[in-house]
Amino acid sequence: MAWQWRLFGFLSLSLLVFSATTNASQCSIKWLPVVRNVSELPQDDYGRRGLSHVTVAGSVLHGMKEVEVWLQTFSPGSRTPIHRHSCEEVFIVLKGSGTLYLASSSHEKSPGKPQEYAIFSNSTFHIPVNDAHQVWNTNEHEDLQVLVIISRPPVKVFIYDDWFMPHIAARLKFPYYWDEQCLQVQASPKDEL
Amino acid sequence: MAWQWRLFGFLSLSLLVFSATTNASQCSIKWLPVVRNVSELPQDDYGRRGLSHVTVAGSVLHGMKEVEVWLQTFSPGSRTPIHRHSCEEVFIVLKGSGTLYLASSSHEKSPGKPQEYAIFSNSTFHIPVNDAHQVWNTNEHEDLQVLVIISRPPVKVFIYDDWFMPHIAARLKFPYYWDEQCLQVQASPKDEL
Repeated sequence: MAWQWRLFGFLSLSLLVFSATTNASQCSIKWLPVVRNVSELPQDDYGRRGLSHVTVAGSVLHGMKEVEVWLQTFSPGSRTPIHRHSCEEVFIVLKGSGTLYLASSSHEKSPGKPQEYAIFSNSTFHIPVNDAHQVWNTNEHEDLQVLVIISRPPVKVFIYDDWFMPHIAARLKFPYYWDEQCLQVQASPKDEL
Repeated sequence: MAWQWRLFGFLSLSLLVFSATTNASQCSIKWLPVVRNVSELPQDDYGRRGLSHVTVAGSVLHGMKEVEVWLQTFSPGSRTPIHRHSCEEVFIVLKGSGTLYLASSSHEKSPGKPQEYAIFSNSTFHIPVNDAHQVWNTNEHEDLQVLVIISRPPVKVFIYDDWFMPHIAARLKFPYYWDEQCLQVQASPKDEL
């Protein structure tokens, strides 16, 4: 676990020194070194308690157009919202364990009761396009750290209050939390479902 | 480094027991568990000495359409060919160090002399679409292990003999090594440059 711990240590330190006040230079893709140290990339909870998010390679921050990579750490008990997005998503669990809730029901009126899957260190899984899902650190004793890959960045997320909320009632959150500071939105995007 | 070493140990063991003779069931995306142990995924050198390749999430193996994720280990001195592809590619170095050679010259006649960049554990970099590049484990004492993310799978690779070979003379390799056993090619694809 040393690699993850080292990374986690760096990130915890970064959290202390990283100011929530972002200036314009952090939103520029100019002058970025070709090879970047993941431990030195900006990290924040973006207002979501228990989350640490790092955009390793991003649309807004690094000019990616087709894929985006995040490093996320969930403290015990913390979780993503129940949500869907019209992109592919791959997870690799670097550390810890938890539960994936997945409802493969994009053709029904609402997600409905999800399937539950145990996720664990060194496991991988992917979320089919538009399937409602939630990743939850259900391990009370350890952080859950995941590498997340999405297609079609920047991500446009539809959030559900619960698993029985109709798909069409899910709320669009765009730009998403970590894209808000830098992404200028010209017009409201359509629901791409 | 414990996480990588554990992963590397598992992979080395897998190499011993993984038969080069692939049967049809390995090419089927049916009956795959939603959550998979990365250490239990097929691993091979696919005829490239010094390489260990694992498709963590793949187009051919797992039905991905927009992103693909590989775990690759390069023994000391081993390297990718000089190549380009019309997709985005992100690397995350999990272990070891080496050199990235990158020629941002898709509008010239040939790649030309590349820029050299030191890559190191916990670093990340991405390759712009169609830029010729090569990743080389130039560390004599340690394996280089990387996580690789590409868009537009399955990958179609154009290979150069050297940095001064014209772009139009680069040879298309499709299906690529790890897709060959399972991918049925109906017709020759065009150069997408």
